[in-house]
Amino acid sequence: MPAQRRIEQLETPAVLVDLDAVERNISRMRSYCAAHALELRPHVKTHKIPWIAHMQLEGAVGIASQKLTEAGVMADAGIEQIRLTFPLVGEVKWSRAARLAARTSLSVVGDSAIVAQGLSAALSPGCTVGFLVECDIGRWRTGVQSPEQALALAQEVVRLPNLRFAGLMTHPAPDASQAWFSAARELFARAGVELPAISVGGTPTAFETHKRVPAATELRVGTYVYGDRACLSNGVYELDDCALRVRATVVSRPTSTQMILDAGSKTLTNDSAEGVHDDLFGLILEYPQARLVQLSEEHGHVELPSASDRPAVGETVTILPNHACAVTNLHDRVILHRAGVVDRQIEIAARGAVR
Amino acid sequence: MPAQRRIEQLETPAVLVDLDAVERNISRMRSYCAAHALELRPHVKTHKIPWIAHMQLEGAVGIASQKLTEAGVMADAGIEQIRLTFPLVGEVKWSRAARLAARTSLSVVGDSAIVAQGLSAALSPGCTVGFLVECDIGRWRTGVQSPEQALALAQEVVRLPNLRFAGLMTHPAPDASQAWFSAARELFARAGVELPAISVGGTPTAFETHKRVPAATELRVGTYVYGDRACLSNGVYELDDCALRVRATVVSRPTSTQMILDAGSKTLTNDSAEGVHDDLFGLILEYPQARLVQLSEEHGHVELPSASDRPAVGETVTILPNHACAVTNLHDRVILHRAGVVDRQIEIAARGAVR
Repeated sequence: MPAQRRIEQLETPAVLVDLDAVERNISRMRSYCAAHALELRPHVKTHKIPWIAHMQLEGAVGIASQKLTEAGVMADAGIEQIRLTFPLVGEVKWSRAARLAARTSLSVVGDSAIVAQGLSAALSPGCTVGFLVECDIGRWRTGVQSPEQALALAQEVVRLPNLRFAGLMTHPAPDASQAWFSAARELFARAGVELPAISVGGTPTAFETHKRVPAATELRVGTYVYGDRACLSNGVYELDDCALRVRATVVSRPTSTQMILDAGSKTLTNDSAEGVHDDLFGLILEYPQARLVQLSEEHGHVELPSASDRPAVGETVTILPNHACAVTNLHDRVILHRAGVVDRQIEIAARGAVR
Repeated sequence: MPAQRRIEQLETPAVLVDLDAVERNISRMRSYCAAHALELRPHVKTHKIPWIAHMQLEGAVGIASQKLTEAGVMADAGIEQIRLTFPLVGEVKWSRAARLAARTSLSVVGDSAIVAQGLSAALSPGCTVGFLVECDIGRWRTGVQSPEQALALAQEVVRLPNLRFAGLMTHPAPDASQAWFSAARELFARAGVELPAISVGGTPTAFETHKRVPAATELRVGTYVYGDRACLSNGVYELDDCALRVRATVVSRPTSTQMILDAGSKTLTNDSAEGVHDDLFGLILEYPQARLVQLSEEHGHVELPSASDRPAVGETVTILPNHACAVTNLHDRVILHRAGVVDRQIEIAARGAVR
């Protein structure tokens, strides 16, 4: 039997995933959704790995995916229930979606008639795709602006061949969501348009969904599988639940209060931790008072709380990144471990899937 | 003959490189260095593509590279003169560097004796690696803090087997560099330590090097090959010189003053444009008054200067990114073109090379 390899021995920078934590996180969300009769739809954008998507599918209705290429990787791995949560615009995208729909059970989202009409025209006769109307409830991103606009687009979808109106969706689900969706329910009922589902998203508020948005029927969550500094800071996750970490090495101690790590924006991204306003780029677990104040592409710039020889050049540390999904997009592989013992290395098959 | 394909027809998001602009940029820097007797060392971190590195090598003394994996990709493509500008720390790195040194002419940088001692011990007898002492002249990153520290480390390097002291380096080269290096020259001369080279880096100040840091003997530049919004904003580049662009599609018009593009942080990164303080994430060339104010992973959030139906959903636009090097790290391929006619697609072979 080969000797066990521990994560402390890995060359840095290295992206690690604690499999025990992943299993706990998946189980917790599954239990929550079951307890509150919410359909669970894990969003694969966080990990981008079919093997983990399959772990998440037990007790789930299917996956959410952001892009066609990402969805294609999941379909290639045998995943059939796929919801695309980014609007498809343009002939190439509609053709690609039609090909994906021919081999999966596909649903999509959109906030304009162009998206619905283009996809409808591209689909082969007999191939039906679910269409959810995206609603903007304070995120200021994609989405119709009112229940009235949602109804108008839903009615257009109902008219179009090859599409099935599949409900309303939003991300995230702010407090105003319940009133918004209640108004929509009433409006749709008056118009005689069936409203089959209301899908909300986002890990930070996930476990409050039954209280905050009782109208919701489906929960789309991505980050819950890994956790990150945003999840930790907003109190939804304990540190032990945060499965994704980055191991880094101290490569320079230019002064007694500064150190430089070999993990910069190419390893961690310059993303902030959503909802955290300290302008830091991660939490250094062994030195929680040290401040990761700036990233160059390869350098992590750290300010120490006071002059010290520790950590010395060559010491390794563990970083909890601000934003898990963005980290996995940078790397070709992650290393899975249990209690620090390396289990395997696994390809992030849908990394870089921007189209 | 197949019909010419134009960049406007490409599926989005797409990363484009204007080959004519690349050739002009390479030629301009080559002429500048020749005119001022500066050794030119292009940094491949901007493009990460061996084919472009070969274009840059005419009139250059070799390449600079940030990481061993990146350097290995270049060595595999036949590039022999390689300078690694990130400190190598740890047994694995020293072994890897020794293997790279056995098949290339390698030099490295460092700011501590640990780096020099570790590498020296790992190198095979008869294999010599150049070692430059990195100097921190106001960047607050890696580097020794004074000419005295530089001399002490240089003397250690001189003592060590398999290393050759190859000079001093810094990045970038602020105004204080000339005084710093002059003091170092004097100090080294008094100590009888030969100072073979002074290497400075950075595109923004490159064309002023002969005036600002006449002590410099070598110029390391990366971004000059592509340009980006930082180069444009600081006046070093005209828009036509900025070779790297991102094509994107308007996927949503949630309101009359907002639009959403299919280029978010997975396409552009959340990097700011160095030296620009407007908090924008790129310049939309067709709508220069539009403000790219926020990026989600896949969404670019744009505020229009006034209510308008244009651009409509489905329209495509061209974005000049904030930071070229960071963009090429996200994508597997770029599309090369001349005057908008697609020339070829080329792999970004050293993308993701963080180790």
